[in-house]
Amino acid sequence: MTEEIQPLIGQDLRIIQRPGQYRFGLEALLLAAMVRRKPEGKAADLGSGDGVIPLLLAYRKVREVTGYELQEDLVNMARRSAELNGLQDRVHFFQQDIRRIPQEVAADGFAVVTANPPFFRPGEGRISSNQSLALARHELACTLDDFTRAAAHLLRAGGDFFIAYRPERLVDLMLKCREAGLEPRILQPVQSRRGQEISMVLLGCRRGARPGLTCHSPLIIYEGEEYSPAMAAIYRGEDLL
Amino acid sequence: MTEEIQPLIGQDLRIIQRPGQYRFGLEALLLAAMVRRKPEGKAADLGSGDGVIPLLLAYRKVREVTGYELQEDLVNMARRSAELNGLQDRVHFFQQDIRRIPQEVAADGFAVVTANPPFFRPGEGRISSNQSLALARHELACTLDDFTRAAAHLLRAGGDFFIAYRPERLVDLMLKCREAGLEPRILQPVQSRRGQEISMVLLGCRRGARPGLTCHSPLIIYEGEEYSPAMAAIYRGEDLL
Repeated sequence: MTEEIQPLIGQDLRIIQRPGQYRFGLEALLLAAMVRRKPEGKAADLGSGDGVIPLLLAYRKVREVTGYELQEDLVNMARRSAELNGLQDRVHFFQQDIRRIPQEVAADGFAVVTANPPFFRPGEGRISSNQSLALARHELACTLDDFTRAAAHLLRAGGDFFIAYRPERLVDLMLKCREAGLEPRILQPVQSRRGQEISMVLLGCRRGARPGLTCHSPLIIYEGEEYSPAMAAIYRGEDLL
Repeated sequence: MTEEIQPLIGQDLRIIQRPGQYRFGLEALLLAAMVRRKPEGKAADLGSGDGVIPLLLAYRKVREVTGYELQEDLVNMARRSAELNGLQDRVHFFQQDIRRIPQEVAADGFAVVTANPPFFRPGEGRISSNQSLALARHELACTLDDFTRAAAHLLRAGGDFFIAYRPERLVDLMLKCREAGLEPRILQPVQSRRGQEISMVLLGCRRGARPGLTCHSPLIIYEGEEYSPAMAAIYRGEDLL
C-alpha cells in the first residue's frame, strides 16, 4: 500500500500516512493541544489510528504514551512513525480491542487518556467501503460507551480524559462520561468560522471530580482564507488557549 | 412597598418593578426571544416572578399565557402589570407551587413552557436576606428537577421547553431534561463579551423528540460600551438570531 511521510509541528515531527486511506484530522491536533498541564504520569490514546495523538503528546510533554488500536496494519504503521521520530522508547502501540483491556494494564493508573472515537452511528450517513475509514467514522466496532468505560478503566482517580465529538450528540457524551465516573469539567466548542454553528466539541473530564463545567469561548479554525491565530498556534505545537 | 413602572420593548410594554427587590434580568428577555416560531397553543412560565416573560410572550406572538409563581405578592404585582398593558384577558398569573400543579391544568397540553429557575444550590454563594431575592436565586423552594418535571407535566407531545441556566451546571441541566422526557434540541451559549467564557446557557428542549442537538454560536451581549447588534435587536422585541 502506498505510504507517504507528512511533517507535523513544522518539521519537528513526521508521520507516515496512506493517501486515500485513514488520515488524521484536525480533531487529533486539537485533542493533543487540550492536554495543557504536563501530566505526572503516563498517557493512553484509545483508537490511536495512525498514531498522531501519541506522537504529539510525546513531543509536547508526556514521558510515556501508549496507543491502543484495533487495526493491526495501523498499529504497525504507527510503530514505524514512532521509530522515524526516535520516540520508540517512549511511545508504544498495541493491537487491542479497547473493550478488553486487561486489568493489569490499568492497575497502576494513567494520568491522561485521549480519544477521538467514531462520530456516527451505523444508521447515520454513508459507511465507507474502505474498512479502515469505516471503522474510524462509524460505530461498527466500538461505541461511545466503550470509549468512556475504557477511559475510566485506565485512569487513576483525578486523571484527565479528553475527547472530541460532534455537538449533535453532546447530551449523550456528557451523560456517558458522567455514568463512567468521568465528570465533565471543560467544554471547548469549535467552529469553522466565527458566527457559524458549532461543528465540534472537545470535552475535558476528570475521574471522580465534583460537577462544575467551564464552557470556553469557541475556538475558531479559519479567518478569511487563513487559519485563525489560535489554530496557527496549535499547528506550531502550542497549547490550546 | 415602593414600586416603579419600567418600559419594555421601547415603550410598547410597561412592567411594574420594585427597586431594590426582585427585578427581571437579561435571562428573561433572552428566553422570550428563544420562542422563535409562533406556537399553536398556550404557553406557561414557571416561576414567573414579576411576570416579565408572560408579558413578553403575549406581546410577541402567544395568544394565551399563564404564569405560575410561588410568591403571592409577585403574583399580584404581575396581574397589575398585565392590566397596565391591557393584556389581562390573555395573560393570567396564579399563585402556585410548581411541584403541585393539578392534573386538570395540564390535561389539554401547553405548546410552550419557559423557566428561569434559581441558578444556585443552598451551599453556593451568599443567600440574600431579602426573601423574594433569595427564592429567585437559590434552590430554597424548588430545585432544577422540580422545574423540568413541571414542564414535562404541562407540555403536550412535541411541545417546546426553554430554560436559562448557568454553564457550570450544564451537565445536570441536560441530564434532568432528558430524564423528564424533554430532549435538548438547541443550545444557545451567551457571553458578555466576545472571547470570554460562556456566562449563561439557553437550552431549547422538545418533549418526546429524538436526540440531536444544534449548538449555536454564542450570543454576545456587549461590544465595547454598547449592546451588540443581536442584543439591541432583542431589546427591540425581535427574535434571537
